[in-house]
Amino acid sequence: MVRNKLFENYMSCIGPIGNSMFYFQAYEIFSSKNSGSVSLIGFSISIIALNSWLFYGVYIKNKPLIFANIVGALGAFFVVLGIIIYPKI
Amino acid sequence: MVRNKLFENYMSCIGPIGNSMFYFQAYEIFSSKNSGSVSLIGFSISIIALNSWLFYGVYIKNKPLIFANIVGALGAFFVVLGIIIYPKI
Repeated sequence: MVRNKLFENYMSCIGPIGNSMFYFQAYEIFSSKNSGSVSLIGFSISIIALNSWLFYGVYIKNKPLIFANIVGALGAFFVVLGIIIYPKI
Repeated sequence: MVRNKLFENYMSCIGPIGNSMFYFQAYEIFSSKNSGSVSLIGFSISIIALNSWLFYGVYIKNKPLIFANIVGALGAFFVVLGIIIYPKI
């Protein structure tokens, strides 16, 4: 069905774009050299979940999930790295 | 297949738990009354993506996606609300 394909293509775009959130957050930390009110627990949990979604995407052979969560898992890692390097002042 | 069911049940748990990240982040903002280095652009983008994932989950009738993204969309909304109420000092 064309509609399926369209929605899947849309999700293959919006998925990684949505997870660009982690890169905006990592940029904010690295540029201000301060992790201020960014939650270490929260972003650490999200690394575990994003990797689970990645394996699940591979398991059910769902491209949008795979694309989005490769981007997300890497981004969340950068955020946690930033929080560790630049702890709350 | 039992393995399918098991993985799906695991994702139905880890999905919402993963998106609890938004609630940890919102709590951090509301308790410190400061959104410090939390990225407004990043979390605003994630609201759009989370809602897209929610509709996609409904569309492909995928329970883990539905559960996770109801939790996530609401949580991301609280974070953005927090950033607006308590802008960076």
